[in-house]
Parts: sequence; structure tokens; C-alpha cells
Amino acid sequence: MNMLLKDQIIILALQEDIGHGDLTTESVIPAERQATAIIKAKEKLVVCGLEVAARAFYLLDPGLRFLARVCDGQRVEAGTVVAEISGSARALLTAERTALNFLQRLSGIATKVSHYVNLLQGTSARLVDTRKTTPGHRDFEKYAVRCGGGYNHRFGLSDGILIKDNHLKIAGGIEQAVRMARAAAPHLTRIEVEIDSLDQIDECLAARVDCILLDNMTPDELRKGVERINHQCLTEASGGVCEENIREIAKAGVDLISVGALTHTIQAVDLNMEIA
Amino acid sequence: MNMLLKDQIIILALQEDIGHGDLTTESVIPAERQATAIIKAKEKLVVCGLEVAARAFYLLDPGLRFLARVCDGQRVEAGTVVAEISGSARALLTAERTALNFLQRLSGIATKVSHYVNLLQGTSARLVDTRKTTPGHRDFEKYAVRCGGGYNHRFGLSDGILIKDNHLKIAGGIEQAVRMARAAAPHLTRIEVEIDSLDQIDECLAARVDCILLDNMTPDELRKGVERINHQCLTEASGGVCEENIREIAKAGVDLISVGALTHTIQAVDLNMEIA
Amino acid sequence: MNMLLKDQIIILALQEDIGHGDLTTESVIPAERQATAIIKAKEKLVVCGLEVAARAFYLLDPGLRFLARVCDGQRVEAGTVVAEISGSARALLTAERTALNFLQRLSGIATKVSHYVNLLQGTSARLVDTRKTTPGHRDFEKYAVRCGGGYNHRFGLSDGILIKDNHLKIAGGIEQAVRMARAAAPHLTRIEVEIDSLDQIDECLAARVDCILLDNMTPDELRKGVERINHQCLTEASGGVCEENIREIAKAGVDLISVGALTHTIQAVDLNMEIA
Amino acid sequence: MNMLLKDQIIILALQEDIGHGDLTTESVIPAERQATAIIKAKEKLVVCGLEVAARAFYLLDPGLRFLARVCDGQRVEAGTVVAEISGSARALLTAERTALNFLQRLSGIATKVSHYVNLLQGTSARLVDTRKTTPGHRDFEKYAVRCGGGYNHRFGLSDGILIKDNHLKIAGGIEQAVRMARAAAPHLTRIEVEIDSLDQIDECLAARVDCILLDNMTPDELRKGVERINHQCLTEASGGVCEENIREIAKAGVDLISVGALTHTIQAVDLNMEIA
Amino acid sequence: MNMLLKDQIIILALQEDIGHGDLTTESVIPAERQATAIIKAKEKLVVCGLEVAARAFYLLDPGLRFLARVCDGQRVEAGTVVAEISGSARALLTAERTALNFLQRLSGIATKVSHYVNLLQGTSARLVDTRKTTPGHRDFEKYAVRCGGGYNHRFGLSDGILIKDNHLKIAGGIEQAVRMARAAAPHLTRIEVEIDSLDQIDECLAARVDCILLDNMTPDELRKGVERINHQCLTEASGGVCEENIREIAKAGVDLISVGALTHTIQAVDLNMEIA
Amino acid sequence: MNMLLKDQIIILALQEDIGHGDLTTESVIPAERQATAIIKAKEKLVVCGLEVAARAFYLLDPGLRFLARVCDGQRVEAGTVVAEISGSARALLTAERTALNFLQRLSGIATKVSHYVNLLQGTSARLVDTRKTTPGHRDFEKYAVRCGGGYNHRFGLSDGILIKDNHLKIAGGIEQAVRMARAAAPHLTRIEVEIDSLDQIDECLAARVDCILLDNMTPDELRKGVERINHQCLTEASGGVCEENIREIAKAGVDLISVGALTHTIQAVDLNMEIA
Repeated sequence: MNMLLKDQIIILALQEDIGHGDLTTESVIPAERQATAIIKAKEKLVVCGLEVAARAFYLLDPGLRFLARVCDGQRVEAGTVVAEISGSARALLTAERTALNFLQRLSGIATKVSHYVNLLQGTSARLVDTRKTTPGHRDFEKYAVRCGGGYNHRFGLSDGILIKDNHLKIAGGIEQAVRMARAAAPHLTRIEVEIDSLDQIDECLAARVDCILLDNMTPDELRKGVERINHQCLTEASGGVCEENIREIAKAGVDLISVGALTHTIQAVDLNMEIA
Repeated sequence: MNMLLKDQIIILALQEDIGHGDLTTESVIPAERQATAIIKAKEKLVVCGLEVAARAFYLLDPGLRFLARVCDGQRVEAGTVVAEISGSARALLTAERTALNFLQRLSGIATKVSHYVNLLQGTSARLVDTRKTTPGHRDFEKYAVRCGGGYNHRFGLSDGILIKDNHLKIAGGIEQAVRMARAAAPHLTRIEVEIDSLDQIDECLAARVDCILLDNMTPDELRKGVERINHQCLTEASGGVCEENIREIAKAGVDLISVGALTHTIQAVDLNMEIA
Repeated sequence: MNMLLKDQIIILALQEDIGHGDLTTESVIPAERQATAIIKAKEKLVVCGLEVAARAFYLLDPGLRFLARVCDGQRVEAGTVVAEISGSARALLTAERTALNFLQRLSGIATKVSHYVNLLQGTSARLVDTRKTTPGHRDFEKYAVRCGGGYNHRFGLSDGILIKDNHLKIAGGIEQAVRMARAAAPHLTRIEVEIDSLDQIDECLAARVDCILLDNMTPDELRKGVERINHQCLTEASGGVCEENIREIAKAGVDLISVGALTHTIQAVDLNMEIA
Repeated sequence: MNMLLKDQIIILALQEDIGHGDLTTESVIPAERQATAIIKAKEKLVVCGLEVAARAFYLLDPGLRFLARVCDGQRVEAGTVVAEISGSARALLTAERTALNFLQRLSGIATKVSHYVNLLQGTSARLVDTRKTTPGHRDFEKYAVRCGGGYNHRFGLSDGILIKDNHLKIAGGIEQAVRMARAAAPHLTRIEVEIDSLDQIDECLAARVDCILLDNMTPDELRKGVERINHQCLTEASGGVCEENIREIAKAGVDLISVGALTHTIQAVDLNMEIA
Repeated sequence: MNMLLKDQIIILALQEDIGHGDLTTESVIPAERQATAIIKAKEKLVVCGLEVAARAFYLLDPGLRFLARVCDGQRVEAGTVVAEISGSARALLTAERTALNFLQRLSGIATKVSHYVNLLQGTSARLVDTRKTTPGHRDFEKYAVRCGGGYNHRFGLSDGILIKDNHLKIAGGIEQAVRMARAAAPHLTRIEVEIDSLDQIDECLAARVDCILLDNMTPDELRKGVERINHQCLTEASGGVCEENIREIAKAGVDLISVGALTHTIQAVDLNMEIA
Repeated sequence: MNMLLKDQIIILALQEDIGHGDLTTESVIPAERQATAIIKAKEKLVVCGLEVAARAFYLLDPGLRFLARVCDGQRVEAGTVVAEISGSARALLTAERTALNFLQRLSGIATKVSHYVNLLQGTSARLVDTRKTTPGHRDFEKYAVRCGGGYNHRFGLSDGILIKDNHLKIAGGIEQAVRMARAAAPHLTRIEVEIDSLDQIDECLAARVDCILLDNMTPDELRKGVERINHQCLTEASGGVCEENIREIAKAGVDLISVGALTHTIQAVDLNMEIA
């Protein structure tokens, strides 16, 4: 993940927090005071976002030294020191909240993804994310999905073709929509069609789509769908997937299971910063 | 909430999703096709973010007409149409996900806040938010807290003084820190000190702070703290507040209860867009 | 092509030309003077960039009215009026050069592409572009390729996997590189490998790549390559393609021919603006 | 050329190419792998843009070390190594195309300019560029003109006054336009008038313009114009200048010959990057 | 004052001055020439803006070494060298004017503020600034006020509540406006009301405002107001304050005196840069 | 003056003032309340900046209607209504300060310039500005100079050549510096040299400079300088010019008098906004 191209959102975050200055820190901490702080996991979690946190400190004060003690994607126990930062005490305290806001959210995503991935152990399904990400944070959050052991669906609207119900309503039938898409699509881009009835499978196969998204189906329907598709293309299950049913869905034999909740519902995990 | 000053994050969100173009829509939907879509609540929720969603559609295509059918802050039942948008079918489909990503998250916050506010009915405590907001989204999320019936704590580091443990470690004692803060603070800004032991109350009162944050205390400790403070300044409870204990905490008599989870844990509520 | 997301480069262009103001126009043209101007093709060409030109005029002065008389992608004869603009005479003159600089270049690309496409008439090869585009203008130039009748290769590094010689040098063999790529690639993304010797074909096929790029090969070598690949995957010819040899290359049976010169060599066509 | 002020277009170029990440490089090249690459001229050319290329590598990864082996403006033979870059293999490969896209275009301009300059050897005419530059790249391209041995006409609309036919149509006659321009122009700015008939010369001289642009005239007309002007002001020939006629035009005695094709037609020269 | 968050205005300033390049310096100073320059006070002044000036030099050329010889807030005599800069002679000369434009203005503010502060010696009034600052320069100018020994009023519209006459006209009476403001205001924000008649004091006190701004009153009226308020809240005098009357106003017993002229009238002090 | 290109500084100004929202206005003024306000001159002044003020209101709320009652450059008496704005009461009050901050400063400059211009009545000297402008506001302030009846010196470093003492120290003598400058300068750019001794005039004339800046000279020295130069080039007086001596300086016969104080010392004039 290249940080330079991500500076815009980090700077925006620093600016919205710091505003006209950190009144507290500037008034009670001497300007020349140096300090060291540690960032510690307060619960069991999968770490993600160390580079982003480091960049937040660096952008505020290039003189701060951020030393990661663990790696993104690493599972750590409560109490683990994940990073140590030293330099200007003022800068440490002023950047703290912004850095933690990134780190806690991204680690929260990685931790949740890791949990889902464990539920899929022994099945052949890949856990994939969706475009239901926090606005402006997509690349960070898709990276967190990878850190948790999941896979990325397309990054956005220009790196994959996914024909959904709203498209079909306007475009006419599956056959026509796929034909139009194939005529325009770059040759390195595959075509997927979302269906909500098994009756649409034959039309998809006739149109030779690369992947069929079986939307909001029960494990039983999924199993029938997978059978009928019979490896003629990839299969993706989506809609209403949760901890309780994901393993059963995977057993239906789909290649991919996409879960919006990986990123549309974000539970920050507990990490804090303490001046040593 | 003035949208012009918030365009940066909305444009960033549109750009990260659209990238080099919406391959699907551009290939399967005719350029001149017009359509109308509705955004519908799929569950019971408090709406928030209509202006942001409207702005996302507008920024992509100023020709789209967004008609809000309800107001931000309004509680609606599942099935309620919250907005109707009409114009270019392509633009509708291309902006859909970005608009919904904002709307679902902000409504999720407002809905949760509203739930917490209900739990405080009949007590004198104000529910307030924290700085644990999504980077780049603070003003939106603090607005969602207001829409849900909550109150805002300070917006950032420059509109209030909150002396926390990390500050005290470096600054020396409470008395000295408050004196330094008062000497520098603009006269319209109050001073709050975070304490984790009731023993620190007397020092705070001697320093004539405007508010004492009682951090991570049990309802019982809070009650004792409130008694000892005896309205000489405001009192805020913070740390470990959840649905289960918030009412008991309020009954301890604190003026304010701040809950990080209002914004650090975000549960998107279900709203979708359908081409009519 | 959504203009909002492209405003940055248009504004940059206006700023670099206008600087501190248009000394000539501001001193010799009365502020309130209205005028109408026409943009005319001075040679036979395929038009491209009308929306970009319109946007340049609009961004400088939203009061200007730009009326396209033809469509992007349309072939016109010398002397054809392609657009008519009316409004403030000052704004017309100040935006003229920036608007024409876009329009002349993009029409130049579309015209050249159209010429290459004609050379491929009756063959089964698709003409595709490359990433050798003008920095900051990629989406415009890829759009011009489509307007000229060509197809787009991937838009950038994140919407397709193309393993080139420099990657192979470091990654080890084709088999290993493709395996690593497949493990990481989003499922809607295909994998292509660049080879410079027919001896590498078997390794590519064994790795089940989606497309083989045959780099810098003679038509004869290409023919042999296409035979050996025998429709097990797509084939792309690249390197040293020019007007003289493109038809012969197409006849070798490749599916795609990529031509860097479509965008790395840009010949502005002649269009000018005249005050009516 | 100060790079800081030019970062916007370089960052834009990196962003449009890299998008959500370099899928190929990130999946097949180990993150910690170091490498050295050379950029080599594949044909005879005049180098230009080394600083821009270096900045592209630096902006992506400040840890990359770019060592120029030749200077901007230097003529090199095919096979010459113009730069050597070492550092992260991933960063090298990800920035390659963007850096080369700048370097190939700017060297292409410098090479062409140098060729034209050679054609003027022994005459007293200066070769100058125009405002027909690539939008957003003007300063780079005007720098390339200087590297090739040419001179710059004005940089934009605010550093010189050039009254053209469209201005004259509205302003009334030459005399009036020049008078208005002189009244408003900063005293360090000269005034030039474009004419398309020798009959307009006397009016220009009467108005005491600093330079007359003789537009689209034959060498013979130019010669007559230069005679009539007789060093009372500078003379510039423009319009339809090409390799075949530039020397003859120069011999007509004009002081300046402006050639739009120096920058409106861009032929990238061949330079590539190889991992050593 | 964190410079990163202030780079936008400094870069804007460099860009507007440098434009397409420093023609003079680039043509007459050799590129590799190194030099040392000193910045010297040409009159007695209070220094302010050394970091901003340093940042301007740094942003243009990170290789320049800026050595401050005095501190912001320090009073120096004419002839004092306040900083020494060494590095590329070109960069020194190109950044000179931008750096000095910041330094001269900010030092001018600090110097004036210091003068006013001296006039208040021995009184209990705090000198405070207003929002009448130069657009885009507020944080710099409020910092200069502190360097001169003054205090800051609120930084902007979101860190304090100040109900002015225009608000009262629409909101109805003081009581209602204050009640509405208190209901919405974050608990760390105080409420101030502007009044232009002593008759409004009782209503303010009844509404329990935190501060009363006594607008445009004579010292005599102020004295009566202070008496009537009798320390029930803070008092601020504003309007028509100047060197001549500020001491008398202070003696009226107000807590704060705000002076728009501190920043709405800016007198650059004389500092210049000389190549050593 | 094109506003689009100037939006950056206006938006920056709105953002720094509004921050997280206008607490006062949002809490005491109903959202749907409409109002009309007038901007009135409180003293005799020359108006400047109406478009900038209008743009500030428009950028905050495109629904506001700004009606200028006078023109930029017009002299008005105290009490004159210069503009009327109507629309959302909240937007009016929130944008007020930012709009006035621009309008008061720019009118202050125009008023002062107009005063200096009057002092030059009947002489042949042009009053010109300098580059000592407020960072980020140059184009606005140079426009204000024109509105006041003055003239602009160069806009920045790229639209004129001015060789100053620091350049001469490094470049060697005048002759060499001018030769180098002429070799590089675009042909529409003139060359001026700053001298501080009349002894340097002959060297300037020998080098055929276009203008000589006579720095910090007495009227008597200026008279001698003008005589010796004898219309062989333009003459500019600079340094230490003030109200008291400008007329005498003009009478020395110089063509131009540049006055840094026009923009380095800014006295906001009094204009206020009242809700009607």
C-alpha cells in the first residue's frame, strides 16, 4: 500500500481533529519536551494499519520515530505492544487520536475477517469483500481484508463487470446485457451477473459469463445452483451472510462468498497509546 | 451542515469507486436513458445523511433531481421511501453505492444514538460523543449524533481543553496543568480534566476546572464522585459505557455520559436503491 | 466520461495558461461584450473531446453556452463546424487555447486510431491501446481510442495482471509468477504474460494464463505462436506495430494488437476557433 | 525547474496509473526485494526530463535512489544509459511507466527542437515555441524546448501581449487595440500584433508595436514584410512552418520563427527501463 | 504551530510569485552556485514568523538550511540578524520575497500587539484579537498576536458562541437566543452576548451568559457596565479601541479588550535579505 | 478577474472561519429563515472586491442572491449601500465575516491607491505596485491597485526581468547580467535593472536595458538620473516613497513610481453588514 497516494485522507483526518491547534497540548506540554509512547493492544486482535498510523505521526512531525513491533496481519494477545513512537511529546499527543482511529478500525476489520476465514477452514470457498466500504477508505479497508486472510472483490466500478438487477431492468435480458458488456470490456476484465432465481442460470451460461452471483439464496438453493452451473463458471454467494450461516453456505460448494458486513459494519478494537 | 466545505470527502469517495469509469453501466445502459429510483429503508431506522447522499448524486451529475421524502432525524419504518431521484440512468447507477455508503452509515449512527437516548429518558444526563470518529467523517458523524438526539463533545483539539492522563504525566500535577491551560485558553473555552481516582477531585475543584471527566468508574464510584463534586463543576462519565449500564450510570447523577461506541463502532443500517 | 472527476486537469490547464490574467483580452475587449464563436475542422478528422472542450469553457465562465454540432467519434470533412459557443467575448477568447489544446489532441488520437482500425477491416484482431499515455490524460486518451473505434487494454495497474519481463526476472519462472498472481488476484481480473520467445508458450499454457502477449515478434513468428496456442487462451501482439505491418500482423491470427503509438505519439489535428 | 510546484501533475499521473494498487507487482515481487534498474536510450536522442522522472520515482518511494548519468539537453547515442535507479524492486516497477511516459515525451520534444535548431544554423532567426502545449504540461514542455536549443515565446496569457485576429475583430483597428493594450500593460511587458497581410504593417509601426507576427505568409511575403518593417520592431513568422521550409523562412530575415508542431505534435522517443 | 497543516497557503504564495519560473534568477545565476544570506531587521521590532519563512524556503528547496538566530516573540533592535540561510543561490533568491512577505507582516502584527500590551501594563485587562484577520492567514495571525503578548479570542465560528446584533434581530430577545444556544452548545464552549446598551445587562445576567461584550461604549459607560455586572460574568470591551483610549478603557475594569485593528490593519515591518 | 481560478483562497478562508460549523447561527437562527442584508460603507472609500465578496457568499450557498449597488473602483460616501444580499439567514450570517474581510482589505487598498494617484495629478509619473503583497492574495491586490487608478508592475517572477542588487552581487557586473538575461528572456519580456548609484547609469544604458530602477534616491538624485538617462529607457523610482514625498519624486521626471506600502501596509476600511 503506497502511502503517498493515501496522504489526502490522512491529512484530512489530522486537519479535522487539530483545527486551529491542540489547545491542551500546546498549553500544558513544553515545546521542547521529548517522550516515548507505546501503542498496546487491549484485547486479542489481528493488527492492521501500522503503516497508516506511522504515516499520521510522520505527516504531523517528520521527526517522530515510529517503530512497529509486530506486522500487519499478525494476531496478537491483549497486552502486546504493537508499536513504539518517540520524539516531540507535543506531536505524539496531538497525532494520537488520529493514528488510533485508523489503527483501531482497520485492526477491527482484520480481526473480524480473520474470524470469518476461520469459519471457512476446510471448505473451498474464498471469503471476499464488497464495495460497501467507508467512503474515502476503500484501499485501506480492502487491505485490511487481505490482512485478515480474506480476498478482494473488485476495487471499484472500473476493474470488473458486475451486472446487477438494476442494470438488467434497464438493459433488457441477461443475454443482451452480457453481449454489450463483452463488446466493451477490456480483455483482462471478467464479467459477472447477479441473479436472484435459479431459473436465470441457463441464460447466464448461454451468455458464457465468467461468474454468477447467487443473491440472497438459502444454502439449499445455492447447492442446487452450484450443481446446475457445474463448474462452467465461477459461483459467488452473497446477501444475508453472517457468522451463523457462512459455513453452511460454503459447504454448498460456491467458489466465493461475499460479505458486506466485513466493512459496512465496523467494530473498532481496543488499542491505546501510553506515554512511557 | 454546509456541503461545499464537505465536498472533498464526497469527491474522494466517488473517485475511489468510479476510478476510470463504470464499466458495467457504461456498456449496458444507453447514455441518453432516463430513469427514476427510490431509496427505501429495509429496516426500522433513524434517517441521517440525506443531504450528503443528495450531494453525491449532484456532484456526479448536476442534472439529477434528488427529492427527500423524509427529514434527517426522522424515525421511519421498514419499507419507507426516504428519497426519490430521477435523471440520467447511468448517473443514478454509478453514484448509487457511494450515496448509500454515506446514508447507511450515518443512519446507522443516528439509529444507535437514538436507542441510547431512549435509555436515558427521565434522567438528567446528556449523551455525548467523542473524537473516536471515522477519519475524514467527523462533521458528518457528529451531525448524525445530533440527529439521533445526542449532543456533541468538542469537535476537535482546538475548541475545548481536556487534560488527560498522558498530559498529566508530563505536565506534573493537575493544579499546574490547569493553571497553564487557563493562562493560554481563549476565554470562551472551558477546561475539563480526566481523572481515574476520586482522590483527584479535590485537586480539580481547587484548580476550579469547569468539568471533571470520571474515567472508567463504576456507577457506585460515580455516585460518590458526583456527591463530592456537588455541582461545583460539570461531571462527565466515560469509559466502558454500554447499553446495559448506561441507565445506571446516568442515575449516578453525572451531567454528561460520553460513549465512544456511538462512532467507533459503526453498524450500517439497511437502505437500498431500486430503479422504479 | 464524467467531467466532474476530470476537472482537476482542466483547471490545471486553464490556470497554467491564464496565470495572473489574460492581459491582451482584458485590455482590448470590453468586459460586457458578447460574442459567438465557431470551432471548425480545418482538415478531415474524427472528432473527440467536445465534452472536454465544453467543460473548459464552462469552468472559466458558466455563462458560456457550448453547442456541439457533431458527436464525438464522428468523422467530419474539412470545413465542418463542430461546435458553436456564445457568451462573454472575453471568456471565449481566454479559454480558446486551452479548449483547443484538448480538442486537437484527442481528435488527433481518434483520427489515427480510426485509420488503424480501417487497416484491420476484415481481420478478427482488436486494436488496443497501452499505458503509454500522456501523464494525467489517461482517461481522456483511452476514451479517444474508443471514439476512434479501438478498444482499451487495462486502464492502469489495478485492473488487470500483466506479467512482463522485468517481473519474470525477479519472480523466477512463469509458472511461479502466475501462481502467485492467481492467488492474489480479484476473481474478476484476468492474467496475461508477456513472452519474447515461442519457447515460453508451453509454460504459459501449463500455468493456464488467460492471455499471452507475444512481444516484438515477426508476423511469421506470431503465426507459429497462434498455432501453438490454438485458442487455449487469448493472444496479443505488441511491439513495433505500425501502419505498414499491422494488417499482416492481424492476419497472423492474434486476437489483439496493442499499439503504443496510438497515444505515445500524438499528432494534433487542425481545428480553430473564429469569432463569428 | 522547481519540482515542488510541479508535483500536482506527477502525482496525478502516478494515481491514474496505480489506482488501487499494482496488482501484478504486489503479487509477484516480494515486498523486501531490492533491485537496480537502468534507463537506456534505444535510439539517438536529446535527453530531457531526468528531474521529472526522478521526482516520479521519489514521490512513489523516497527511498529510491535515482542517479542521472547524463544531463538534460545532452545528445546521446542509442544504447546510452541515461540513469540508474536502485531501491525497492516493487517501487521501481510500479513507477516505471509513469517516469518513462514523462521522459520519453520530453526527450521527444527536445530531440525534435534540436533538429529544427540545426536547420537554422547560420541564420539569425530564433526558434520559439507556442501555447499549443499539452494541457497541464506547459512548463515541462517549454523547458524541453530550451533543452533542445530553442527559445520560449510567452508562457501564457499574462506575461506578454499578443493581439490576434479574433481580438482585432472585436476591438476595432490595430491602432485602437494597441493603444488600449499599452494603457493597461505592465511596463515590463511588450506588445505584439498578429497580421495576415503586409498592408497592416504600416498601422502596426504607427502604433509602435514591439513585435509583428507575420501569420501564414510565404517566404517571399515574409521577405517583403521584413524589408518594410526594417528593424523598427521585432518580426516573427508563424503558421505552416515545417522542416522543409523553416530554413527558407529564416533566410527571409525574421527575428523569430514560432512552430506549433514543436509541442502540439509529440513523438515519444524510445527509452526503456531494465532491471539489471 | 504545525507547518504541515499550513503548507497550502505557503505553496499558494510560492506559486503565485514564481509562476512559470524566476526568469531573472534562472538567467543570471548559475544553477550550481551556493550562497549564504542573512535576514536582518531594519527597524526595532518583535519577530514573528520564522518558522513560516523557514518553511517557504524549505518547500522551494529542501536543501536550503535555515538557521534562526532569534526566537519568535523576541524584541530585536534595528540591525539584528534574525536568520541565516544557506544553500542554492537560485533558491534563496527565488523564495526571498515570499518568505519576507510572511515574516514582515507577522512581525508587524506582533510588534503592534506588543505595543498595545505595554499600554495595558498594570491593568487587569487582557488584550484579545478578533476574526478580522487576513483570509487564509488566521492561524498565523492569531499566533502573531500571542507572540506579541496578546491573547486569542475564538479562532472561528465553531469554538465559541458569540451572539451579535444581527443574531438578536432574527432570534428575538437575549433570553431566547441564549437558551437556544445553551441547548445546542458543546459543554466546553462558553456563551457571550454582544450588547450596545447597558439596559441589556440584566437580561444577559438573567440568562446566565458567560461573557458580555460591551460594544462601542465610552470608558464611562464601560465603568458603569462593569459595576452593574459585578463579576457575575466576564466582560469584554470592543469597538473603536485605539492606542489613545485603550488604557482608559482598561481602567474601566473590563476583563478583555478586543481590538480588530491588531489584524485588520497590517503594517509590515522592515526586514530584508542580503546575500552575504 | 476570473473567480473560478481564485476559489482556492476563498474556500480556504471560509473553511478556517467556519471550521466544524457556525455554532451561534446554527443554534439561534431557524434553518428555513430567509433574510436580506445590506453592506454599507461606514466611511468615504473606493470600493473594491465586490466580486470576491459575492463569490464568498455564493460558495457557501449558491442560493444567496448578491446584488452589487455600485462598481469596483467607484468612490462612495459614508452611508452608501454597496451591496444587498438575500437568501438563507444562516448562510448570510455565516459568510458575513469572510466576505467583509476581503471587501474591507481590498477597498482599503483601492482607497489608498486612489489617494496616491491624486497626489500625482498633473505629473507624468505612473504609480505602480510591487511584489510586497499578502501571500495568496496577489491577483486580488493587484486588481485593487488598478481599481484605485494605479498600474501593475510585474505580477511575479516570470513576467518580467528585474535584476536587483543581490543578483548583481553574484552575477558580476550589470553588463554581464543583462547579456545573460537577454539571451534567455522571452522576446515579449523587458529587462529592468535596479541601481543605487547614479554611477551605474552608463553601464545600464550601454547594456541597453529597457528600464532603470533608481533605488532609494532623493528627488534631487532622481532628477539628475532622469537627465542623464534622457529617455533612452524608462525610469522607475522606488524606496522610501510616501505621501509626503511622492509628488516631489514625480516632479523629478521619472516614468514610474513604485510604492511597496500600497500593499505591504493594509488598512481595512470600514464596511459592515446589517440584516435589513
